[in-house]
Amino acid sequence: MTSVKKSIGIGFVGTGFMAKSHSNAFKTIPYMFPDLPCRPRLAALASASAERAKKAAERYGFEKAVVGHEAILDDPDIHLVDVANGDRLHAAVALAALERGKHVLCEKPLADNLADARRLADAAGEAEKAGVKAMCGFNYRFIPAVILAKRLIERGVIGRIYSFNGSYLQDSGCYEDTPAEKIWYANPGGPKDSGVMYGIGTHIIDQARYLVGEIETVAGSWRTHNPIRDSAGGKVQVAGEEDAAAVVGFAGGVLGCLRAAAIATGRKNRLSWEISGSRGTLGFDLENLNYLQVFLRDSPVREVTGFTKVNVTQLDRDHPFMDIWWPRGHGIGWEHAHINQIAHLLDCIASDRPVAPEGATFEDGYRAIRVVEAIRRSEATGMRQKVDEILPVEF
Amino acid sequence: MTSVKKSIGIGFVGTGFMAKSHSNAFKTIPYMFPDLPCRPRLAALASASAERAKKAAERYGFEKAVVGHEAILDDPDIHLVDVANGDRLHAAVALAALERGKHVLCEKPLADNLADARRLADAAGEAEKAGVKAMCGFNYRFIPAVILAKRLIERGVIGRIYSFNGSYLQDSGCYEDTPAEKIWYANPGGPKDSGVMYGIGTHIIDQARYLVGEIETVAGSWRTHNPIRDSAGGKVQVAGEEDAAAVVGFAGGVLGCLRAAAIATGRKNRLSWEISGSRGTLGFDLENLNYLQVFLRDSPVREVTGFTKVNVTQLDRDHPFMDIWWPRGHGIGWEHAHINQIAHLLDCIASDRPVAPEGATFEDGYRAIRVVEAIRRSEATGMRQKVDEILPVEF
Amino acid sequence: MTSVKKSIGIGFVGTGFMAKSHSNAFKTIPYMFPDLPCRPRLAALASASAERAKKAAERYGFEKAVVGHEAILDDPDIHLVDVANGDRLHAAVALAALERGKHVLCEKPLADNLADARRLADAAGEAEKAGVKAMCGFNYRFIPAVILAKRLIERGVIGRIYSFNGSYLQDSGCYEDTPAEKIWYANPGGPKDSGVMYGIGTHIIDQARYLVGEIETVAGSWRTHNPIRDSAGGKVQVAGEEDAAAVVGFAGGVLGCLRAAAIATGRKNRLSWEISGSRGTLGFDLENLNYLQVFLRDSPVREVTGFTKVNVTQLDRDHPFMDIWWPRGHGIGWEHAHINQIAHLLDCIASDRPVAPEGATFEDGYRAIRVVEAIRRSEATGMRQKVDEILPVEF
Amino acid sequence: MTSVKKSIGIGFVGTGFMAKSHSNAFKTIPYMFPDLPCRPRLAALASASAERAKKAAERYGFEKAVVGHEAILDDPDIHLVDVANGDRLHAAVALAALERGKHVLCEKPLADNLADARRLADAAGEAEKAGVKAMCGFNYRFIPAVILAKRLIERGVIGRIYSFNGSYLQDSGCYEDTPAEKIWYANPGGPKDSGVMYGIGTHIIDQARYLVGEIETVAGSWRTHNPIRDSAGGKVQVAGEEDAAAVVGFAGGVLGCLRAAAIATGRKNRLSWEISGSRGTLGFDLENLNYLQVFLRDSPVREVTGFTKVNVTQLDRDHPFMDIWWPRGHGIGWEHAHINQIAHLLDCIASDRPVAPEGATFEDGYRAIRVVEAIRRSEATGMRQKVDEILPVEF
Repeated sequence: MTSVKKSIGIGFVGTGFMAKSHSNAFKTIPYMFPDLPCRPRLAALASASAERAKKAAERYGFEKAVVGHEAILDDPDIHLVDVANGDRLHAAVALAALERGKHVLCEKPLADNLADARRLADAAGEAEKAGVKAMCGFNYRFIPAVILAKRLIERGVIGRIYSFNGSYLQDSGCYEDTPAEKIWYANPGGPKDSGVMYGIGTHIIDQARYLVGEIETVAGSWRTHNPIRDSAGGKVQVAGEEDAAAVVGFAGGVLGCLRAAAIATGRKNRLSWEISGSRGTLGFDLENLNYLQVFLRDSPVREVTGFTKVNVTQLDRDHPFMDIWWPRGHGIGWEHAHINQIAHLLDCIASDRPVAPEGATFEDGYRAIRVVEAIRRSEATGMRQKVDEILPVEF
Repeated sequence: MTSVKKSIGIGFVGTGFMAKSHSNAFKTIPYMFPDLPCRPRLAALASASAERAKKAAERYGFEKAVVGHEAILDDPDIHLVDVANGDRLHAAVALAALERGKHVLCEKPLADNLADARRLADAAGEAEKAGVKAMCGFNYRFIPAVILAKRLIERGVIGRIYSFNGSYLQDSGCYEDTPAEKIWYANPGGPKDSGVMYGIGTHIIDQARYLVGEIETVAGSWRTHNPIRDSAGGKVQVAGEEDAAAVVGFAGGVLGCLRAAAIATGRKNRLSWEISGSRGTLGFDLENLNYLQVFLRDSPVREVTGFTKVNVTQLDRDHPFMDIWWPRGHGIGWEHAHINQIAHLLDCIASDRPVAPEGATFEDGYRAIRVVEAIRRSEATGMRQKVDEILPVEF
Repeated sequence: MTSVKKSIGIGFVGTGFMAKSHSNAFKTIPYMFPDLPCRPRLAALASASAERAKKAAERYGFEKAVVGHEAILDDPDIHLVDVANGDRLHAAVALAALERGKHVLCEKPLADNLADARRLADAAGEAEKAGVKAMCGFNYRFIPAVILAKRLIERGVIGRIYSFNGSYLQDSGCYEDTPAEKIWYANPGGPKDSGVMYGIGTHIIDQARYLVGEIETVAGSWRTHNPIRDSAGGKVQVAGEEDAAAVVGFAGGVLGCLRAAAIATGRKNRLSWEISGSRGTLGFDLENLNYLQVFLRDSPVREVTGFTKVNVTQLDRDHPFMDIWWPRGHGIGWEHAHINQIAHLLDCIASDRPVAPEGATFEDGYRAIRVVEAIRRSEATGMRQKVDEILPVEF
Repeated sequence: MTSVKKSIGIGFVGTGFMAKSHSNAFKTIPYMFPDLPCRPRLAALASASAERAKKAAERYGFEKAVVGHEAILDDPDIHLVDVANGDRLHAAVALAALERGKHVLCEKPLADNLADARRLADAAGEAEKAGVKAMCGFNYRFIPAVILAKRLIERGVIGRIYSFNGSYLQDSGCYEDTPAEKIWYANPGGPKDSGVMYGIGTHIIDQARYLVGEIETVAGSWRTHNPIRDSAGGKVQVAGEEDAAAVVGFAGGVLGCLRAAAIATGRKNRLSWEISGSRGTLGFDLENLNYLQVFLRDSPVREVTGFTKVNVTQLDRDHPFMDIWWPRGHGIGWEHAHINQIAHLLDCIASDRPVAPEGATFEDGYRAIRVVEAIRRSEATGMRQKVDEILPVEF
């Protein structure tokens, strides 16, 4: 409880939405997680644009702003590199950081192709031997309701798992007249892999893998309903897919459905799933994130069975993040999953323990992308695809 | 508005759950649909068991009880044969009835195999030319909320349709120790096609086809998680599948997910779907059947958009069943869809108009089964299956 | 189980909304409650209008239509008089029926003033000694979810009761331009007691008394926000109050809030309550009547507490109405409470057992009105009012 | 957009729950509200305990820790005093701070008695003339859904208001065996005014006043169901009331119900209300704070009316806090209302504009307490009480 804590120098790459949410996390952790054995130091923030770097560094209180990520990689006082730049730039920065022995937090998707993701997972595996931590930003693992779900499953509360139904639904692309500039997956001129599967599908895939187990087979399809969009420069071709669906087979016979869509009109940010087993069912919905729905076979009162809406803003006991936030019923928000996740990473760094199983490794980041690529393959071939037959070399 | 109405003699085949719900409909219609141009007369009820026939006939007020359905088919005073017996007995009775020129209401699934379903659809097509009506019992088409959804879609209120997510979830098989006698799909010794796909999957398939359009391709899988059950006579092999899932492609590019499960622990009778389009979204849940969820792009107040929970117990205007039930907010139940459906059929018979598009034809019954068989084929071959390549001759 | 059952001749007074729902009940009971030891016979239906009587009798299958209720009271083959006419005509008919030794089902409110209600309760008390049954139509007692709530409370499942919050919200009067003809409480020129308190307030008061216990004190107010309405004949003065609220003290220290309103915009038929106790809470909402919300202190899994949404369409065991309706999850509607209620009354008549505690006696009907009058007195005097100080003689 | 902003020195009094939530706000504002024309400087934190002061100051990054609040009041570099100590200590500190010309944020309840509250409101009125700002911490005004409700009401979207139903339900006291130490209102040996009415009732009263208007009359009651509690030192008498209810009359004829309870078993932190008017209804529930329920008479599609669940995490346009938080659908939490509130206060200080109407003045704090005292008086006298007849001098 002494105030002499290990200081961990943080170097940021990126200035956008994720940089904002990560900065908020780093700034909040010192006082909301007072027992953490280390303190983050916002050492430097990098961007390709000097102006953006300067503005963001000033806003969030970084000690300096730099242009390009090299300066961060070379800085010996930076211990953790936070890769929060554009999706297609993740791999290069994360790989370089690992090579220099720096801890890495890389936003999802880990890369924009499977080969790079494999390279990153391998590099992280190597780095791990030297005590270097690498975590992929699957922040939804750190929502208290999801943590509770994971624990209930592990304790056998819902019995043998039968089924998973999960989706991540958004609607940014639902209106035909929304210009390409406002469509995050439009990416005119970009490669095919910029759509909902990489962008949000990896989140629901990670939830499925985290909670239920490995996905072995997929049979899927995808669509782009609005392939042409207006933009300031005229009509453009939209690169990314808008909707994808798959039937998936998990290890152990569990059957699942996955869906990711940016055309689910009216659904702003709805990652949801329902997991049924031989003694109960669990349900979660990100648009109502303080609750876990739980059906249990057993009840203290025979007639009283049904779905119980459990308020979960933090876990009560035995939990590293216990008593961090507010009293029961005083809800937390979307950002708190990021804060919890980064606190976990800092704790792992300071205590030299693995980021898994609570946090996602780069291997998890790779495997989520491999499922995406298996769905693509399945769409292309018309066949149910074994996931482990998808090889990084081809991509 | 005179009381001299055409009398329609009704002959029942069956005494179980569906016979109960249909009897309730026939007894309720005369006073709840007073403007209907005909009156049903419960002429005869048939069962293989004389005792069961007598008991049911007495209970529901049929004029006579008969053993075997032949007596009903031969009775010139019976105009409509209600086929509400066991699923695998539907086809023979319905076909014989059509051949004798009788109107037929056949419960779903229309048959227990595709070839019989095709035969029935053909026979119904022929019979139609002679003014004979044949309807397949997809009762959920007649829930007021579903009727409203259909109308909103037809009027373009939700725009161009993008996606369909639908499932029919029950939990009768969720506990491993439930004996086979209590599992409707257990069917020890029966053929493979007795599981959730024929039993409840056809319902969600019909909703999908009715509301969105023809299903062209499927990629699916199914599972039986508890293949061995206890029974009074010892362990038995369970014939039917417990869970099935498919990614489906509709005409026009709509992408869908379908699921039918009897192991969705805690879900008693949850047929639900969500349909998204370029101007809105519609959602329905049978466990809350008096409501339709509607998201509209347009709103009279800019900030007020979201899902609107519309109470629909009947339709207000322009509707044949208007003002049949209770005032707005006085909810109806599951049985009312059956009553509405049978009132529709009686109206079609009396007015000599087609049961479609509101009611399901035998062709609809056939097509629902064809999708099921396409999912089976897809599971077996591992390939995405074109639905119209599934030929009845093979089954 | 023989088919020779006691036949109970039914005489109806009234042709409106309640006559429709009661007729539906009498017609449904014979086949849905096959084990009931009696059968209703729809002997006669009376109305002040010969035309309305004839039309309704024909519609519902009464043996004859009569003008005025005297013919019904004099008919020795009529054993049960169903008083379903206008609220202010209940008392005279019900009293006359009791005096002639007929069983009576009287719709709520029992009367349109306290003195008449007292007379009826006294007459019913006397008649009871001779085996004559009198029931007041508080049909919401017979919703399965409410029956379950009552049982859980009696078994101590929610412990010592602390609080009750209840309301009955409708919106028929919410728009200023709705003409008086469409406002059930408008009653131009009628006495003051024709508003929401008699009309729907008595329902929530009966629920409170039935579930929690006697109401001892009230402090209340009421409002008529739209005292003038358009009508075909020009502007009219609206007699009934549109909104009423009270803080009530129950025996044993329970504190409650009651509200009845016809100006609760958007609430079509929302009777709802929440009852909290020292070990749990129960919640009900008529717009979602197949569910009871239950919070229990105890849980088989420590972290899993919250409100459980229990699907209750009928009770499982030990219940007279068990297995009457449909399988679990196949919801029932508003009308089923009426059917259950009337089946209960017929059973009480056939078995010569009291209608209480499940059904509401005329004493219950009286006490509900006494609470209404106590609220009126409280509004007028500005004082908290002891309910038992309200004497029928003054009204 | 220059970084030279006015620095506002902040002095804290208190180290508990509210100090934590306010500290979080002050630390978050600089980077989440980058356009605010000032920056808070955490100058000093005071507590009666040197140890607690030191620990909290270190945790939240205050420049110094001091014992007792005098040092803060005397510090010329402190411009804003944040009064976040125990409820009964608010008044003395806030009054002293105003007297020295410091801006004050005082947590609710403003005081623990009406006379002190009046003194504070008067002092704040005086101070306002000199540009000194005083705000009472009714943080729920700053939830985006509540802000939207306020705007819709002001724009007449729901028409003329008829009714308000509101409550603040918690359950910390629901179990009889919870020891006094865990009961925030137990306050053994303290004065009577330490219960739910001051503690949480003032919140729902402020919401009522803010959204609907002045409360003119009350008729109320309260209860303490568990007057004796176990504690480490043996049985103790509980001072505060556990449950309170009132029927209230607003200016303009609106009728309301208010309830505050700590024995609402299963309700953790449920402040909720429903406001009905002649063209619509608004509903809010703090346990689901990212949503506003809106019923509108008008709809672009005739059949589509009902309650619309509007996701409101921030306001889109024309709003000082626009684009502060996360994209639509990325929910915020309970703490964000505090952050928004304090950002508003800082903006008012920097811009020298009044904290009202968005923020609550000390007059608002006084008036909430006056309603509480009117309810107490009503309970004692048994009479409906005019609120403005409650005079501070008597208390």
